[in-house]
Amino acid sequence: MDSSPLKIIPLGGVGEIGLNMTVFEAEDAIVVVDAGLMFPEDHMLGVDIVIPDFSYLRENRHKVAAVVLTHSHEDHIGALPFLLREVNVPVYATPFTLGMVKNKLEEKNVPRASLVPVAPRQKEKIGPFSLEFVRVCHSVADGVGLGIYTPQGLVVHTGDFKISHGVSGDHATDLARFARFGEEGVLALLSDSTNAEKEGYTLSEEGVGQVLEAVFDAACGRIIVALFASNIPRIARIVDMAKKRKSRLVISGRSLEFSVALAQEQGLLSIPRGMEIDLEAVDDYPDNKVVILTTGSQGEPMSALARIAAGTHKKIRVKKNDTYILSSKFIPGNEKAIAGIVNSLFSRGAEVIYEKISDIHVSGHAFREELKLMLQLTRPRYFMPIHGEYRHLVHHSRLARSQGIGPDRVLLAKNGDVVRFNGTGARISGSVETGRVLVDGKGVGDVGNSVLRERRALSEHGAVVVVLILDAETGVVMHGPRFTSQGFVFGIETGHLLDDAACVVLEVLEEVDMAAPDRVERITAKVRNALRSYFSFVIQRRPVILPVILEV
Amino acid sequence: MDSSPLKIIPLGGVGEIGLNMTVFEAEDAIVVVDAGLMFPEDHMLGVDIVIPDFSYLRENRHKVAAVVLTHSHEDHIGALPFLLREVNVPVYATPFTLGMVKNKLEEKNVPRASLVPVAPRQKEKIGPFSLEFVRVCHSVADGVGLGIYTPQGLVVHTGDFKISHGVSGDHATDLARFARFGEEGVLALLSDSTNAEKEGYTLSEEGVGQVLEAVFDAACGRIIVALFASNIPRIARIVDMAKKRKSRLVISGRSLEFSVALAQEQGLLSIPRGMEIDLEAVDDYPDNKVVILTTGSQGEPMSALARIAAGTHKKIRVKKNDTYILSSKFIPGNEKAIAGIVNSLFSRGAEVIYEKISDIHVSGHAFREELKLMLQLTRPRYFMPIHGEYRHLVHHSRLARSQGIGPDRVLLAKNGDVVRFNGTGARISGSVETGRVLVDGKGVGDVGNSVLRERRALSEHGAVVVVLILDAETGVVMHGPRFTSQGFVFGIETGHLLDDAACVVLEVLEEVDMAAPDRVERITAKVRNALRSYFSFVIQRRPVILPVILEV
Repeated sequence: MDSSPLKIIPLGGVGEIGLNMTVFEAEDAIVVVDAGLMFPEDHMLGVDIVIPDFSYLRENRHKVAAVVLTHSHEDHIGALPFLLREVNVPVYATPFTLGMVKNKLEEKNVPRASLVPVAPRQKEKIGPFSLEFVRVCHSVADGVGLGIYTPQGLVVHTGDFKISHGVSGDHATDLARFARFGEEGVLALLSDSTNAEKEGYTLSEEGVGQVLEAVFDAACGRIIVALFASNIPRIARIVDMAKKRKSRLVISGRSLEFSVALAQEQGLLSIPRGMEIDLEAVDDYPDNKVVILTTGSQGEPMSALARIAAGTHKKIRVKKNDTYILSSKFIPGNEKAIAGIVNSLFSRGAEVIYEKISDIHVSGHAFREELKLMLQLTRPRYFMPIHGEYRHLVHHSRLARSQGIGPDRVLLAKNGDVVRFNGTGARISGSVETGRVLVDGKGVGDVGNSVLRERRALSEHGAVVVVLILDAETGVVMHGPRFTSQGFVFGIETGHLLDDAACVVLEVLEEVDMAAPDRVERITAKVRNALRSYFSFVIQRRPVILPVILEV
Repeated sequence: MDSSPLKIIPLGGVGEIGLNMTVFEAEDAIVVVDAGLMFPEDHMLGVDIVIPDFSYLRENRHKVAAVVLTHSHEDHIGALPFLLREVNVPVYATPFTLGMVKNKLEEKNVPRASLVPVAPRQKEKIGPFSLEFVRVCHSVADGVGLGIYTPQGLVVHTGDFKISHGVSGDHATDLARFARFGEEGVLALLSDSTNAEKEGYTLSEEGVGQVLEAVFDAACGRIIVALFASNIPRIARIVDMAKKRKSRLVISGRSLEFSVALAQEQGLLSIPRGMEIDLEAVDDYPDNKVVILTTGSQGEPMSALARIAAGTHKKIRVKKNDTYILSSKFIPGNEKAIAGIVNSLFSRGAEVIYEKISDIHVSGHAFREELKLMLQLTRPRYFMPIHGEYRHLVHHSRLARSQGIGPDRVLLAKNGDVVRFNGTGARISGSVETGRVLVDGKGVGDVGNSVLRERRALSEHGAVVVVLILDAETGVVMHGPRFTSQGFVFGIETGHLLDDAACVVLEVLEEVDMAAPDRVERITAKVRNALRSYFSFVIQRRPVILPVILEV
């Protein structure tokens, strides 16, 4: 008898950054790998977060056996609370990831889920699948990739990874295990494409460490390091350097406090007793014996770092001998906000170190030579690039072809594409419903393109409300036109605007047949058009016109 | 008698990218160097462009003798139409810059200004100043820096420049002239700080040329190059390569057509007769004999390139053997829009070449080693970094100090600072009014922070208008509450929202003292607060509430 076929369906993260989520399906069982969110794009006004469309999982609810998480970044776990509300299945992940997940589920009031801790090189049987977890190095603690033994063969999913020879054994990508997968025979490799455009290797962690050490050595005052709360490997390095400097350490910010406590609890991070002090006590120590860890490295406007830079932080005022280190990437879209913080800190006289001028950060995602190494170790029959915009997938596909994977064995899928593996090979055939669901406040999915278009229009030139009350019998104006505006200037210099706009409305009324049964609709439409043209002509602006025509 | 003192006042561009404008003042005469705009920042919703605050020039209108332009980029000439409306003085610039300016002034209906053409190494006497124009290499045609002989000594203003040894004599930065300034003795150097964070030298133009040639050689179909219309040096290179390929050339886009025609007229660009064809004729030639030049390299949504990528261009459909070259920088803020175009082109099967994967672009601004060379050639007594965010100015200042300019001779000014030079030296003392003026449609300066805040609020969760008509005598509700919304969902799933909101409004009415003379104001405020709390509690959204309470 033939083995049961296998379906791999990316529901997010393929052709975009964020929303990572992949379905593995065989013998009527589904394992979901990751459930990530995406932060809203510029045009998604007012949206809090974006999550993948779960339609396929909803429709196949009875098949879903488990969710497996590779690591605790939001683009891999952020949609989990929403997913678990729909399909309450066990969640498999390493302890640090689970700790972060537990916190998130509590915040979001999701009833206690079944959280199953796993360890690298450990195997878990889930339905027809046997999953092995494999340590990968990434800019987070306790990340893993997966070896998924399926009825069709072994599929390797790298998770987010890079290969850094400098990190200590426990945190390094487990090359030996990936190599053994290769020896066993890999049906398909699903690999992180984020940096498929970047030549060479990621900067070594030792190199970054040396640069950071030089910055620490040169600093004559307080050192303030801003980074991502989950970047435990980087935090561990900073703690070590603070130790050498004989400095006290302040951990400032709720998310950072949580992740540091979790990492300590799990033995991923060790802070000597007495080293950590409260932010309130910071002035009790000499400046050159203080290291402060905080968040806000992406220029988030409400973060501690932004408040320090703006001079509005409740405790920390910038001092001339302070050294600020922004130990993360200038993520596109955040560049201007980050630069604003750098400029403010400089203008207050502090020293500022950031990735544009100093190698104090390294990406958590493999560059091209590392991607090649992964391909060479696993030697897959099929290759499927994941985790990237389309351009990244294209470049990763070309790279795989340069490593000897024939064009028919490169599976350049789109979200929702069904990649089928059976005895005769693999092909993309058919697709399932997929997409992006916008979360705005408590509403999940009710904000769509038409609402966004309305918000866009409002954002550009505001709104003008015009109220007009007519006598229901005679059609005579009883009150108005009365104007109210928001985001639109009926100001002093344009004082005549208001009077003229009233005239425009009254002129429109004269053109309408007051005997028509739909006269209110007619007036509404005509008033909207007339005011639109009027404002456009007079002041070249296009406020949203909201006529309210009432008959009393 | 002592020489007359000199004031240098940056009115824009110092501590920001854009708005470049510097005042030189001596003996009651002012020369304004550049009058640039800034494109609106993210929070400046609905704003078209930003220009500097001209208050100082308005107040000293009688002193203003001339505007001198270094080159034709918008951040150097974009505010000129607005400035000339206030102070109608002669404009000095090189012919290509003047050609671009003339076009702009006509577009903006500014009465014919007096445009004075100048040539490199030519001197112009303006009041107490004698200005010499010096060729600089930049990503535009006909750019110059300035040697300004003032009563206090020679001030060198670099304009936007880089030093590229690969470009031909006429377009290369005139190092000999800058060196001679140095020999004569330079009082102060004002130098472009844009790339003061970038180590080394800009990529050479030959290097870029070789990479572009390799791309041309590899292309087996049409080649579509997107670039800035004013980048005549790059256009000249593309024309040469198209010539070698024996291709026809299409110039698509109004701004590109204009600048190419202007450059040809002035001998800056030569396109062989018969080579240029109309876009409509493009299908009459084999694909590999067609090169199309267009704009839209910054992902501008209405550009030809964006329409091609979206499949909505009236003439050009993407073909699988097309090669698209985005020959410009991914400017921060535009990265996502540009990446969107790259992704679309890839997904339609075309080849796409862009700066992230290929050295097909080089900055027009000097890197650190070039900035050092400028410092070494001119050997100024004082150094003033211009043209950059504060972080760039800081790094440029440090660079100058590393080149032997003492800390008291580095003038790190802010916009509006008055830098005074007299017999005893230079110092920053006092400041004049400066700032950013927002242009929105025909309104100049009427949109300020309060309007922007209103637009921001509207953009996030839309607006809810609630109209209520009361009997003027009894206070009884005659009509309403009637709701109208925009950018806010009173949708099916939240159908009860509307009814409940009406109840909230009616409950509020019961709490108001109907005998109070200010009852309408009280009702308005209470309705606003009550609905705000209600929506926030029920759905966690904060629409702008616009109550219209009328008494009839």
